[in-house]
Amino acid sequence: MSLEIIGVDADDTLWHTETLFRLTHQRFNELLGEFADADTLEAKLSAIERENMKVFGYGSKGFTLSMIQTALEVSDSKVSPGVIKELLQAGKEMMTHPIEPLPGVEDALKALAERFRLVLITKGDLFHQESKLAASGLGSHFSGVEIVSEKTPEIYTRAFARHGGAAETSLMAGNSIKSDILPMLQAGGYAALIPYPLVWEHERAEKPSDHPRFREVEALSRLRAWLDEIG
Amino acid sequence: MSLEIIGVDADDTLWHTETLFRLTHQRFNELLGEFADADTLEAKLSAIERENMKVFGYGSKGFTLSMIQTALEVSDSKVSPGVIKELLQAGKEMMTHPIEPLPGVEDALKALAERFRLVLITKGDLFHQESKLAASGLGSHFSGVEIVSEKTPEIYTRAFARHGGAAETSLMAGNSIKSDILPMLQAGGYAALIPYPLVWEHERAEKPSDHPRFREVEALSRLRAWLDEIG
Repeated sequence: MSLEIIGVDADDTLWHTETLFRLTHQRFNELLGEFADADTLEAKLSAIERENMKVFGYGSKGFTLSMIQTALEVSDSKVSPGVIKELLQAGKEMMTHPIEPLPGVEDALKALAERFRLVLITKGDLFHQESKLAASGLGSHFSGVEIVSEKTPEIYTRAFARHGGAAETSLMAGNSIKSDILPMLQAGGYAALIPYPLVWEHERAEKPSDHPRFREVEALSRLRAWLDEIG
Repeated sequence: MSLEIIGVDADDTLWHTETLFRLTHQRFNELLGEFADADTLEAKLSAIERENMKVFGYGSKGFTLSMIQTALEVSDSKVSPGVIKELLQAGKEMMTHPIEPLPGVEDALKALAERFRLVLITKGDLFHQESKLAASGLGSHFSGVEIVSEKTPEIYTRAFARHGGAAETSLMAGNSIKSDILPMLQAGGYAALIPYPLVWEHERAEKPSDHPRFREVEALSRLRAWLDEIG
C-alpha cells in the first residue's frame, strides 16, 4: 500500500479564517454592547448560527445574516439601522479580506506535490472558497479542488474516487478534528491534524487517541516524516 | 458522432425559482414603499445586486443581504428594524420554500435517462442547490451533479470531462441563453433552450440565430425529436 492522494483543508490550514471571524465577533459585541454583555451576545449568536446552518450552510454570507438576526433579536428590534449597516459592512470585509498563505504552506505544498496528487477539500461557500483559492495563489499546486457542503465519510470516499483514488490510499490534512480527521478515519483513510490556535466552536470534537492512521503534526511542512513511514 | 451526456440546468428548468424571486421583490417594494416608488427601488436593488455579485456570487443569501443593503441605502438608514426583520424572513422563506418539479419534468428525465447519462449542471449556492435537489426528489435520475460558481465554456468542458464525456458529444438544456446556451455552443456542444416565462434581468442575452447546434423547445419532454435527429 502506498499513499497516492493528499487531501488538504483550506480555512485555517492554508490561510487564516477563524482569526478574522473572532475579530468580527468582537466588533459585533461592541456594536451591540448596549443591549447585552459579551457572553450573552456570544451565546445568542451561536444558537442562531447553529439553527440557521440548516438553511444557510457554512460561510460568511450566512454568518452575516445570523449577526443581523441576532442584533434584531437581542435588541427586540430596537437596534439602530446604522448598526445593521455596520454588521453588513463587517460581513463584506470578511468576504473580501486579503488571503495570505500561512507561513511555510507554499513550500510544503510544492514539496508534497512532487510525490503525491494534491486535492483541496473544503466545505463552505462555493463562490467564496473559489475566490479565496484564487486570491491565495496556491491553486497551481493542486490537481483538483472539491468544495463540499459537509465533510462526511461518504463525501470523502466520493471525493477521492473522483480523483482516481480511494480513501484507503489517501491522507487528509487539516485543522478540524470534527471535519478533517474523524470522518476521514471512518472512511478508511489516513488523517493528519495540523492544529490552528483557534477552533470555531461548532467544530470542536475529541481527538482520537492512539489511532494507527492518525497523527498530529505541527505544520504542513512537518508531514513528511510520517509520510515516509506510511510509505 | 452520437450524444452521450445531457446536461440539465436546475432553477427554472426543473423547478420554479424566478417566480419566487419576483414575489419577494414585490414584498420588498411594499415594505420600502414609503421611501421610493417601485421602479426606483427595483433599479437600486438591481444595481446593488450587480455590484455585490462580485463578492457574494449567485444565490438567495447574497440576494437577502442585497435587499437589506438597498433598504438601508434608499431610506438613508431610516428604515425601521422591523422592516429589516421582514426582509430577513423573506430571504429565509425563499431558502426553505418547497421545491416542486415543473410539470412533465420527472417523466422527461426518466425517459432521457434511459438513453443518456444525465448530469445536473447548476450555478449558485452549493448548500442551497444541494438542498433543493434533495427536496425535489429528482436526484436519482442524474448520474452526476455539478454545482459551479459560473457557467463558462471552460467550465462546461471540464464538467463534461469529469463525467467521462466531452462538450462535443453533450447537450445542455436550460432556460438561460446567457448561461446555458451561449457558453455551451462556444464549448463546441449542443444547446437546447427551454424558455421559462420569467427571466432574471442579469441573465438576459440575445438568442443565437440559426445555429446548427442550437434549438428552442417548449419543454424538456419535447427534446426527443431533436435528439433523434442528432443521433
